[in-house]
Amino acid sequence: MTNLEEMGQKAQDAAFELGQLGSKEKNTALLTMADSLVLNTKEIVAANKEDYDKAKENGTKKAMLDRLLLTPDRINDMANGLRQVVELPDPIGKVDRGWQTTSGLDITQERVPLGVIGMIYEARPNVTVDAAGLCFKAGNAVILRGGKEAINSNIALSETLRHALQKVGINQDAVQLIDDVSHETAQKMMELNQYIDVLIPRGSGKFIKMVVDKAKVPIIETGAGNCHIYVDRDADLDKALKIIINAKVQRPSVCNAAEKVILHRDIANQFLPELYDALQANSVEVRGDTLSKAIVPDIVPATEEDWGTEYDDYIIAVKIVDSIDDAIKHINKYNTKHSESIITENYSSSRQFMKQIDAAVVYTNASTRFTDGQQFGFGAEIGISTQKLHARGPMGANELTTTKYLVQGDGQIRK
Amino acid sequence: MTNLEEMGQKAQDAAFELGQLGSKEKNTALLTMADSLVLNTKEIVAANKEDYDKAKENGTKKAMLDRLLLTPDRINDMANGLRQVVELPDPIGKVDRGWQTTSGLDITQERVPLGVIGMIYEARPNVTVDAAGLCFKAGNAVILRGGKEAINSNIALSETLRHALQKVGINQDAVQLIDDVSHETAQKMMELNQYIDVLIPRGSGKFIKMVVDKAKVPIIETGAGNCHIYVDRDADLDKALKIIINAKVQRPSVCNAAEKVILHRDIANQFLPELYDALQANSVEVRGDTLSKAIVPDIVPATEEDWGTEYDDYIIAVKIVDSIDDAIKHINKYNTKHSESIITENYSSSRQFMKQIDAAVVYTNASTRFTDGQQFGFGAEIGISTQKLHARGPMGANELTTTKYLVQGDGQIRK
Repeated sequence: MTNLEEMGQKAQDAAFELGQLGSKEKNTALLTMADSLVLNTKEIVAANKEDYDKAKENGTKKAMLDRLLLTPDRINDMANGLRQVVELPDPIGKVDRGWQTTSGLDITQERVPLGVIGMIYEARPNVTVDAAGLCFKAGNAVILRGGKEAINSNIALSETLRHALQKVGINQDAVQLIDDVSHETAQKMMELNQYIDVLIPRGSGKFIKMVVDKAKVPIIETGAGNCHIYVDRDADLDKALKIIINAKVQRPSVCNAAEKVILHRDIANQFLPELYDALQANSVEVRGDTLSKAIVPDIVPATEEDWGTEYDDYIIAVKIVDSIDDAIKHINKYNTKHSESIITENYSSSRQFMKQIDAAVVYTNASTRFTDGQQFGFGAEIGISTQKLHARGPMGANELTTTKYLVQGDGQIRK
Repeated sequence: MTNLEEMGQKAQDAAFELGQLGSKEKNTALLTMADSLVLNTKEIVAANKEDYDKAKENGTKKAMLDRLLLTPDRINDMANGLRQVVELPDPIGKVDRGWQTTSGLDITQERVPLGVIGMIYEARPNVTVDAAGLCFKAGNAVILRGGKEAINSNIALSETLRHALQKVGINQDAVQLIDDVSHETAQKMMELNQYIDVLIPRGSGKFIKMVVDKAKVPIIETGAGNCHIYVDRDADLDKALKIIINAKVQRPSVCNAAEKVILHRDIANQFLPELYDALQANSVEVRGDTLSKAIVPDIVPATEEDWGTEYDDYIIAVKIVDSIDDAIKHINKYNTKHSESIITENYSSSRQFMKQIDAAVVYTNASTRFTDGQQFGFGAEIGISTQKLHARGPMGANELTTTKYLVQGDGQIRK
């Protein structure tokens, strides 16, 4: 079995060196990584073909096969992703605050790298490059553990990045891949507290839940998104229709897509038939409670299970409520604390919704699809945190840092 | 067995209400809690006597008995602690940052309560009041689970706080105590992810390690402190002596006390005998490596185990190094990432130490004993985080919050 302690130690040593690098050195390395990916396209595509053919043989579904596939264009996209990370501001060394204490000590709180980040993820090989780039930008070493379906692709990608680091004279253990994809190494990685400062799982809800259950390393939970759009009594129904269709249909498989529509009863009679037709025209299956079925009989009855389910598919469920209070109560009960939106022209309704909804991102009159590092202006993202500790919402390079208090004295002792 | 799900649900409901309260209402409640503690002194002392007598019967050590004891003076101190929390700025509603995106959305990132905080702790009953006050200030509901030795005291204290809340018309489930002190309820609490947003353990290193191992709820680790003072070649040795004695002797049982002294070899011959005498005069046992024993033969030989040990006692261990690089390497290997100090008049040594040491707080020319919420100017503290996620160093009310992104649009959909 792979010696994870040894990898952990190497990662810590590399992290110490990375912590001392300036922005210019880190950016040069990132550009070299990008160029190396493009130069190695042939080798990467060949390695990926092995994974792809094997997955196809094993009867993997088309959507999954597509996620696994690497083409020269996609490799070029990954390289451009790294070049975008170069353009981001360096989060390290930023002083968040500073003050002088009554005892005359000068304290500053500065941004420093987290240290060693563990990434554990399923099939998509692009996570290997995206995560390595963003972790590196923030001065962290990364230990990667991707899915077994993508192992040859991941080896080719991580070796490319490591050679690029070596080329510019940086410790290549800043990026390490666990190439033994047994369950034992995954479990051991999740318990590697001595070396890994934080573990970030990427993948399906089921996968993330498994990691949360088994890990002893501190985790940042990402990605579960049972997002709601509440159409208030005072909504502009044209905006509501456009936003719901966008939030459901533009990319249904992602975590910021809308899964539920909550309608105020006063606008339901007028709005639901129109909404239903528009959703049907976009091949979306519409489920609903008994009130909505009374308005549109073709609606599929929703069960209790529906309210808590993230479909990630062309399905949406509709519920009709008596008041904004009921809407807020329902959403806070069933949501995954990801993204929620109210459609209203009423100031007080907007204010109440924004204050009372418990989620990473709360919107008035906009699509939930904007919950995204790029859309927020953070550049690349490593995931969307749905927990409350450390980082909430889209996580960019800044969220991959911690702080250190630097205290300057001249002989102070405590009285 | 106590129904923890029910308590969790009640806590979530209370947290929702607390999140809507303004500073004035919260401060009125805190003052009422403080007054109620003083008014209930007799009942609290009586309940504490039961715990105390039982502990004495069971042969509990004197230091532990003292931690358990509540006197009218100590109850008054707890009340004053709550009054100090009133004076702190309210962390809720503060806008950390705000900007407009290219799509015309206005985003602000605001401080909001974490929600429900779980506190799990050992014997000291004052944690019941301190934690409840600070959690409440930041708009959080708290579920408390203290040690069985203090159960009667904790019931009396928490009931006093709950009645005070009721008196001012606030949901008393903002403060709940688990009065069933079986291991089963502790284990169940540590797995109550659905209701508890963060769990903070307080107690011995062994206790905290147990919680870290068993919990599934996100944790903030606090309190382990194997703190070092490095005396550089260019140190002012008078400052060094005063700082080491203060950091070791002023209160040896706490986590920010110094446990190790690292000496540059160039000043060891001159400084160690003087330091040894001063430590001896303060009844401190001095252990050391072979080099230090060669200078002061009475030094007790230190073993490998010593370097990683937090004594919390009148013991210190001395190591002599060839260079500041060796000092930094040793400290980063053995420290608990709490507090480390360099004593030097050399600018570059200070800068190198401050940059390269991995710890929550790094000092130049000051005692490690300043790592403390009060000393930092945060007012009360709920603990000192030694992990890197979410909060690092002394944790005040601000560290008991998270953020929420509020996004205002006018019909934006994603292209």
